Amino acid sequence: MAKQRREKVTVVGVGLLGGSVGLAVKANRGNVHVVGVGRRQVSLDKALAVGAIDEATLDTAEGVAGADVVVLATPLGAYEKHLEAMKGVLGKGAVVTDVGSTKDLVVRLAEGILGRGGPFVGSHPMAGGERTGPQYARADLFVNAACIVTPTRNTPARLTRRAVRFWKDLGAITTQMTPARHDGAVARVSHLPHVLAAMIVMGQTSGSIDLAGNGFLDSTRIASASAGMWREIILTNRKAVLKAIDDADEQLMNLRDLIELGDGPGIERFLETARRRRDKLLAKRISRQT
Amino acid sequence: MAKQRREKVTVVGVGLLGGSVGLAVKANRGNVHVVGVGRRQVSLDKALAVGAIDEATLDTAEGVAGADVVVLATPLGAYEKHLEAMKGVLGKGAVVTDVGSTKDLVVRLAEGILGRGGPFVGSHPMAGGERTGPQYARADLFVNAACIVTPTRNTPARLTRRAVRFWKDLGAITTQMTPARHDGAVARVSHLPHVLAAMIVMGQTSGSIDLAGNGFLDSTRIASASAGMWREIILTNRKAVLKAIDDADEQLMNLRDLIELGDGPGIERFLETARRRRDKLLAKRISRQT
Repeated sequence: MAKQRREKVTVVGVGLLGGSVGLAVKANRGNVHVVGVGRRQVSLDKALAVGAIDEATLDTAEGVAGADVVVLATPLGAYEKHLEAMKGVLGKGAVVTDVGSTKDLVVRLAEGILGRGGPFVGSHPMAGGERTGPQYARADLFVNAACIVTPTRNTPARLTRRAVRFWKDLGAITTQMTPARHDGAVARVSHLPHVLAAMIVMGQTSGSIDLAGNGFLDSTRIASASAGMWREIILTNRKAVLKAIDDADEQLMNLRDLIELGDGPGIERFLETARRRRDKLLAKRISRQT
Repeated sequence: MAKQRREKVTVVGVGLLGGSVGLAVKANRGNVHVVGVGRRQVSLDKALAVGAIDEATLDTAEGVAGADVVVLATPLGAYEKHLEAMKGVLGKGAVVTDVGSTKDLVVRLAEGILGRGGPFVGSHPMAGGERTGPQYARADLFVNAACIVTPTRNTPARLTRRAVRFWKDLGAITTQMTPARHDGAVARVSHLPHVLAAMIVMGQTSGSIDLAGNGFLDSTRIASASAGMWREIILTNRKAVLKAIDDADEQLMNLRDLIELGDGPGIERFLETARRRRDKLLAKRISRQT
């Protein structure tokens, strides 16, 4: 009777990210059964239709029962409800991870509800786009994407290893850091640019916005993402976002001084250093992909 | 003997923009002879090789003699020298325009040297990219690009009409405004985003830049443009750039307050308004192109 058991992966939330996890898992992890947990039947039906999940349920406890891997992929505001629903239902061998954009609050919440020694270990795959919904899900969404796994000192090493392995199997390039360190870094590299993109749009007048070119559209693209989602991201990472804003403001005021003084060499040095840093980053990414 | 004279268009500066003017003029204006004026023979040779110009010279006065249209397409810092060189050499029917990113200083300079009643009328076609050099020139660079023509109260209407017609023939969508109004608008829609893109790059740490995703790359793309060129743009538009920075800083501090207070609805309203405005702009551009 001892035949090889099929792995069960449950995705809680079947939007772009959850749907892509489903497709990627099925494309990369062989003998697997993917269960999708959703809030609305219509989203589950779409996820079934694109083949992102094999089975659908509106009931979190039912969906996660017996799962080997659970991936939380709902908005951050729904985490608590789902974590509460899975408490006591998870099997002994389960690992629970997530795709949330902030980690410190999330990890505290999950460890508080599910326990400190596991089964939760936070993850943040840096992939996505402005489009939401399972219809945009892609099996290769995580290929070459950075994915930060954020164990705490309470997390058993084997859990961390399993989470890392899970994302690597989907093509991601994983890094480990503490939740707090993660939050500081993404505040600078992701949340601050988002805030500034919105600010650039809001600073336009009817006379100026008509002159918008490709540079404007690129630099504000992220401002077209969901306002509700970003409200949550910013609020769950308040301290780090405020720090990033304050540091940016200081830089802006320094540059303002250079402009006011008409300090050409100083302005050029600032812009040239930024240009070189960005080009170095680009070169690194290109070499990674080839 | 009265056979139809061939139109002569002289491009001073044969980089991406000057080269593209040459290609576009030849593609769209029939019986035309394009002369390129350059600082270095190697650039002129490249421009000749890609067919952007028919004739090349290192001498501004020689290049503009007898021209019907002269387009200044050098860095802003070289304008004065070229304007001085063309003084007294231009024919009576000539119109001189340019592609510079700031207009108030440029127009004052040109009117000061060439005279108030013409032949100069400023233009700013909003096209280009990070790549420079005539090898990237394209005949369709100005198609559907906004082009602002900036007559002053001294400019004869027929000159303005000729400049507008010139850019329309290359496919641009022209608008007219005063030089000062232009500078205020581009400070908001173009120069401010540039400054902020550089600032975002400069605000990264070694820990954060490794997490850069597509959002970061898009929002900082313009920071990869030439630092020397942007130094000039910012310095020739100092007052308006400072105003745009101050207004942006005020917005940033308002948003900072909302974040510090944890005002979720306020943050969402800000982000949602920005999202809608940007989407409206996008929709308008798409409808214009189809």
